[in-house]
Amino acid sequence: MIAVLCGGVGAARMLRALSRLVPAEELVGVVNVGDDLTLHGLRICPDLDTITYTLAGLDNTETGWGLTGETWRVMEELRALGGEAWFGLGDRDLATHLYRTQRLIQGDRLSEITASLLHHHGVATTLLPATEDPLATTFETADHETLSFQEYFVRHHHAVAIRAVRIEGAQEATPGPGVLEALATAERIIISPSNPIISIAPILAVPEIREAVVNRRSDTVAVSPLVGGRALKGPADRLLEEVGHGATAEGIARTYREIASTLVIDQVDAEWAPAVEAAGMACVVTGTVMDTPERSLRLAEVVLGV
Amino acid sequence: MIAVLCGGVGAARMLRALSRLVPAEELVGVVNVGDDLTLHGLRICPDLDTITYTLAGLDNTETGWGLTGETWRVMEELRALGGEAWFGLGDRDLATHLYRTQRLIQGDRLSEITASLLHHHGVATTLLPATEDPLATTFETADHETLSFQEYFVRHHHAVAIRAVRIEGAQEATPGPGVLEALATAERIIISPSNPIISIAPILAVPEIREAVVNRRSDTVAVSPLVGGRALKGPADRLLEEVGHGATAEGIARTYREIASTLVIDQVDAEWAPAVEAAGMACVVTGTVMDTPERSLRLAEVVLGV
Repeated sequence: MIAVLCGGVGAARMLRALSRLVPAEELVGVVNVGDDLTLHGLRICPDLDTITYTLAGLDNTETGWGLTGETWRVMEELRALGGEAWFGLGDRDLATHLYRTQRLIQGDRLSEITASLLHHHGVATTLLPATEDPLATTFETADHETLSFQEYFVRHHHAVAIRAVRIEGAQEATPGPGVLEALATAERIIISPSNPIISIAPILAVPEIREAVVNRRSDTVAVSPLVGGRALKGPADRLLEEVGHGATAEGIARTYREIASTLVIDQVDAEWAPAVEAAGMACVVTGTVMDTPERSLRLAEVVLGV
Repeated sequence: MIAVLCGGVGAARMLRALSRLVPAEELVGVVNVGDDLTLHGLRICPDLDTITYTLAGLDNTETGWGLTGETWRVMEELRALGGEAWFGLGDRDLATHLYRTQRLIQGDRLSEITASLLHHHGVATTLLPATEDPLATTFETADHETLSFQEYFVRHHHAVAIRAVRIEGAQEATPGPGVLEALATAERIIISPSNPIISIAPILAVPEIREAVVNRRSDTVAVSPLVGGRALKGPADRLLEEVGHGATAEGIARTYREIASTLVIDQVDAEWAPAVEAAGMACVVTGTVMDTPERSLRLAEVVLGV
């Protein structure tokens, strides 16, 4: 069994590629819930949904986000009403949130609901919420304003200087059902090329999860999300400069060296390999851009073969 | 100013007809919230919405319920997911519920949100939730099962024998903002031809509202919802037999005689006029079926002219 620490799009592509090499039943994603939000009374889990939709083949390959064939009737009317329409929720996507929210109200666990949604969509890969306890990634701006994840990400388009990222609730949070078992028994743990500060850190901020991964350090491989010092998507590079160890492969190595023994970096960053090794990690240089199924597959082969 | 105690469709037609005779700014509906429900995390107010949509001219005249031009994308997907799809929520209607729920979460009052929705839809009539406190109409079946309003109404299509109707929370509830002022200052209070047991009773179950209407008994006119002993829509006749004073104009008079001085009954029930008067109410016989704008207008004229 292979366990993968997951954010959103990068993790979804990693899992999709891995599922061509490993039976999907033997793949377990441990998924960030620090971005989860309640909006309009609905519980929204962006990373769980992005991965589920992608593995189901429902991702919109034209826009790069959202569902294929999505419609926007509810959102158009909500905007007309003057409602909170800054967070785009397609009609089909909304059904997921209604379904999840109603089941949570009825007392079902997020992990059970996630399993039902995967089953409905015909996805055999397991996705486990990192925790079912309240967890919220928040940002303190350079101006000492506190922003929720979605305020930072969607409202401000992550174009605001950050002085600190906090994972509220992490110290009290316990791992979700199945998470510790997966991390203890996996042949290999992969840290997907998701944002280290806001996708992977919230998972590892749960003390027992961090401890479990540290215990498996020699079997843990991280994939750098940087290519030439830039994130392919999102603010990872900016945040690594602002609150991390710098937007370089070396900075990633300093971020992950206590929990992973190997770092996979992109070939354009090959010059950083000695610095990665000096930071205490083995370094593998390969193509990390998952822009085609073939390239994704090659990366997955490398990650499994380390 | 005219105050109208309101359930759903019958009240909406009454208000629409009254607004052709009285400036809409001088019409105030005090609306039942005993049917309100939280489903999928969303606060749904069926009577407030039915009236708002009808006064906005958005009611679907073909189906007799829901919005005109409505689509069902979310519900179709929710049904496919195996979710709770027994309560039909169209896409456009859902936007109302998302909007309301988010504003309630942000601390706005239901009365303010209702006013915003009316304003958005260009409706000048005022609608006031009878109360903003928790109120829930529940049913005890002949088999001693307790059903929520929507379980009784939507799931069982009100085809189950009832031994008691309870308005949970009523004793602790206080009138919503503006309600007592409207009832104290209205030239006339009209009890619309809504279901006495499950639309009007939950309004009057709030002690201060009942007291306020009792104080205005001589200015209060009720319209019977029965035509030939049958309700035009819904289970009023059945419930009047099961837990009320019988499905006749006399039964309605016994229901309302402490709070209204006049009962308007349909011409097919003219034979009951002496019994209504014996029960202590003045009786006006006219056509009460609001199936055309002209007939609705004539009824409104009668009700205002009493």
